[in-house]
Amino acid sequence: MTVNNGNRVKATEAAPQRVIELAEHVGGQVVGDELLIITGAATLSDAGEGDVSFLANPKYEKEMRTSAASAIVVGEKVELQEDGRTYIVCKDPYYAFMQIVVKLHGHREHQAIGVSAKASVAETATIEEKVDIHDFVVISDKVHIGAGTVIYPSCVIGPGSRIGRDCVLYPNVTIYDGCTIGDRVTIHAGTVVGQDGFGYATHEGVHHKIPQIGGVVIEDDVEIGACCAIDRGTLGDTVIGRGSKFSNLIAIGHNTKIGPYSLLVAQVGIAGSVTVGHHCVFGGQAGVVGHITIGDGVQVGAQAGVINEIPAGSSVVGSPAMPLTQAKRSITIMKDLPEFRRKLRDLEKALRHLLKGS
Amino acid sequence: MTVNNGNRVKATEAAPQRVIELAEHVGGQVVGDELLIITGAATLSDAGEGDVSFLANPKYEKEMRTSAASAIVVGEKVELQEDGRTYIVCKDPYYAFMQIVVKLHGHREHQAIGVSAKASVAETATIEEKVDIHDFVVISDKVHIGAGTVIYPSCVIGPGSRIGRDCVLYPNVTIYDGCTIGDRVTIHAGTVVGQDGFGYATHEGVHHKIPQIGGVVIEDDVEIGACCAIDRGTLGDTVIGRGSKFSNLIAIGHNTKIGPYSLLVAQVGIAGSVTVGHHCVFGGQAGVVGHITIGDGVQVGAQAGVINEIPAGSSVVGSPAMPLTQAKRSITIMKDLPEFRRKLRDLEKALRHLLKGS
Amino acid sequence: MTVNNGNRVKATEAAPQRVIELAEHVGGQVVGDELLIITGAATLSDAGEGDVSFLANPKYEKEMRTSAASAIVVGEKVELQEDGRTYIVCKDPYYAFMQIVVKLHGHREHQAIGVSAKASVAETATIEEKVDIHDFVVISDKVHIGAGTVIYPSCVIGPGSRIGRDCVLYPNVTIYDGCTIGDRVTIHAGTVVGQDGFGYATHEGVHHKIPQIGGVVIEDDVEIGACCAIDRGTLGDTVIGRGSKFSNLIAIGHNTKIGPYSLLVAQVGIAGSVTVGHHCVFGGQAGVVGHITIGDGVQVGAQAGVINEIPAGSSVVGSPAMPLTQAKRSITIMKDLPEFRRKLRDLEKALRHLLKGS
Repeated sequence: MTVNNGNRVKATEAAPQRVIELAEHVGGQVVGDELLIITGAATLSDAGEGDVSFLANPKYEKEMRTSAASAIVVGEKVELQEDGRTYIVCKDPYYAFMQIVVKLHGHREHQAIGVSAKASVAETATIEEKVDIHDFVVISDKVHIGAGTVIYPSCVIGPGSRIGRDCVLYPNVTIYDGCTIGDRVTIHAGTVVGQDGFGYATHEGVHHKIPQIGGVVIEDDVEIGACCAIDRGTLGDTVIGRGSKFSNLIAIGHNTKIGPYSLLVAQVGIAGSVTVGHHCVFGGQAGVVGHITIGDGVQVGAQAGVINEIPAGSSVVGSPAMPLTQAKRSITIMKDLPEFRRKLRDLEKALRHLLKGS
Repeated sequence: MTVNNGNRVKATEAAPQRVIELAEHVGGQVVGDELLIITGAATLSDAGEGDVSFLANPKYEKEMRTSAASAIVVGEKVELQEDGRTYIVCKDPYYAFMQIVVKLHGHREHQAIGVSAKASVAETATIEEKVDIHDFVVISDKVHIGAGTVIYPSCVIGPGSRIGRDCVLYPNVTIYDGCTIGDRVTIHAGTVVGQDGFGYATHEGVHHKIPQIGGVVIEDDVEIGACCAIDRGTLGDTVIGRGSKFSNLIAIGHNTKIGPYSLLVAQVGIAGSVTVGHHCVFGGQAGVVGHITIGDGVQVGAQAGVINEIPAGSSVVGSPAMPLTQAKRSITIMKDLPEFRRKLRDLEKALRHLLKGS
Repeated sequence: MTVNNGNRVKATEAAPQRVIELAEHVGGQVVGDELLIITGAATLSDAGEGDVSFLANPKYEKEMRTSAASAIVVGEKVELQEDGRTYIVCKDPYYAFMQIVVKLHGHREHQAIGVSAKASVAETATIEEKVDIHDFVVISDKVHIGAGTVIYPSCVIGPGSRIGRDCVLYPNVTIYDGCTIGDRVTIHAGTVVGQDGFGYATHEGVHHKIPQIGGVVIEDDVEIGACCAIDRGTLGDTVIGRGSKFSNLIAIGHNTKIGPYSLLVAQVGIAGSVTVGHHCVFGGQAGVVGHITIGDGVQVGAQAGVINEIPAGSSVVGSPAMPLTQAKRSITIMKDLPEFRRKLRDLEKALRHLLKGS
């Protein structure tokens, strides 16, 4: 299956389908009624008659037993009970469920409107075919917009920036001058790309602005949440790597490079000149100081404060961040402290006793 | 008194009033000069002649003694001194003061402008009477706007969304498609409601987007601060309960339900599928992991990191969050550690002495 | 040199210049080839032939040795090697480099467009000369805009607000009613100034809004990043002091006063009624509770949680924040805990031995 970012796919009321069709679509096996008609998708707790749901995490197995879902997508290791329910058994149930939701409901549909007469498009801008530019959008001088891209109302694209093909920019997004956005990129409302990095030379108590002459490069298949702020580079570019996904209210400092396929949960803040590897995961509200390197596949816990280089493959938590194993030891020993105190008292008592006796 | 959200009330220069009128308005007793004329409201430290101020927290009592306020709203337990000042004595001084400020100054006035010719309103939208739609607002297909609602410039309301009566949306707010906003809701500038939740199925290292087909329901009398981001549900809705109030830069994940009358201070982040009870309070920058339940009346400290269910009525602090009492013990024991070290040394010394002697 | 905020300065491709010209411009001495032509500025690691770079922090000295930069700006204490490279030696290399970057590249250029016919400017607004107001900007009643100011698309300036001279407001900025912005102020995209503070009087479980009748004053030479939210005062003003600089996604509560020349890194949150001195620095994601005073020159670490007054000149870290020295002791003692445990066991063992023996 090719990557699908949900842009330009028709979203409709769920089109009813038989379980067997859904199972074949995801390469799964049906256990139960192959001809059962599915009319919607829902979580285990919300599902009702006609709905398909899924079990991807064993800890929700109990919830599965009591769910009203007509069909459930499960992994191959789940022990199925003869409860009259229909199951779709497959290798990767969450991925299969995702494909089923797309098949049933589709992604958000974007109305083909062309270039609105109420938008403001510079004469020097180049717009490829099948682009939708909504009301009150501003496309500045020498901007290029790739085919199939949708730009929702009140977005502003600064001079010389390039937006690739099949992108979606939701309302009120600002792209500053000289930024480059790849193909199939989605940017949610209120996000800002390319504002000046936070750079000043302080001289005799006054902060003098350092020109921020770099840009921002957002590679293909990136999705950025709402109200994020991605600084342009001071000298050279800030880069968001291919296939990475950001949630909301995330701050990225100047010249930072985020590797491909990383996930940043809401309110993460990464300072300037940080290099992040591929397939990293940052929990919500995690922070990273400037000028360090974070290896590939690193997992950073929510609210962690990373102040040192992290080797590839490690997991860190806490502020300041430490390896997960060390943090667990630290928590254990904190719990033991009241016992330390008790033991110290006992020892002192015993010793006083001995000293009296001797 | 009915709930007043400050929408559609005339804001003016303070209209001078006598102390007795203000006292009667709030059901309080005057101690001092009933006929004193009040021309404004101010804090204890800022107040000057003609101003009314208030004392709600005993720790500011000293500040009250030195304040230049002509009149002060106080609770029934405050010991009044014969200082020539006038007091308004009542049960709930902060609530009384609020009513006095409204009586003196009113809330922000919204100019009745009707639907601007520079707004873009879809033909299929339905707009009730006495609605103000400012310049460069976009009202998409099948949107419904209730009577008395004000929508400030550059707001964008996505297809099929419904806004209730007497709401105020400040500039540059984005409401995505299929969201439902109740009556008397206020949303401050730059806030985004209904962007896609952060949901991907990762397959062979690539993150595939899960369609986000749920919506957002914001119930009556909610106020949302500036630059907040409220995800739509993946399947089913994200819900902000009646009378809840949000400060700025808050992130709410998909399918989370915030109970009624909760307060969220700035930069709080609540992940997806969280259920929060009624009358909860979250301090600034607090974070909550996904898929947990927080009981009614829970108090979460600033910067706390909640990773487990919290029973109703509890107070938690710290990251990871722990009950307030446990945190206090933990802080106490941390302070004792240097003493632990000293005692250990003394014990070792005494023991060495004993061993030599024996 | 007068303060330069980068507004109204021509940004171009670097204009090639000789090293001697650059050195004279910053009052530095050339060691090496005075006639060398410099065509650009870059960091030590990115620099190539023709580029000037800089060394301000001795820890990057090794990086300097391997840099491909043709010329490097260094401080007076750096030991120069005879490596054929050209150096510009000066007192404050970072400040000198900043001046060189401005000379080579300039700041962002703002096209002189005048007042766009697609903007919406109230008749009662007063606009001084040489002002640029872009498409879809809304200038409300009785607004005043000073000479030389640029207001980018989709900004909204509320009734009665005053913007000073030579300011730049990037796209999608919202300024509420009754705010005052000084001269040479820069506000980046998506930022909101003057939304209502978070003030409610809770009575019988219902939160009643307190009118927010104060304003916001942003003094001269301030720069505010993207997606920040600065509350208006409840009674009296919120103030951002002259020359202070904010990064992105910062929340400032009502009636807070930030002193002059302070620096706030991304995602800092300062609650209401806080008084911050001059030349303070707040690390990323730091938070401050309401109603406290922070002295002049205070340094607050990233993610710190300030809950008490901080005397002038101190540095604090941690949540809750403590003086840096205390935090270091605390970290040291945490590391010693496993040893404490071992010693306790040894002592108990030795004592048991003694008791058996006696």
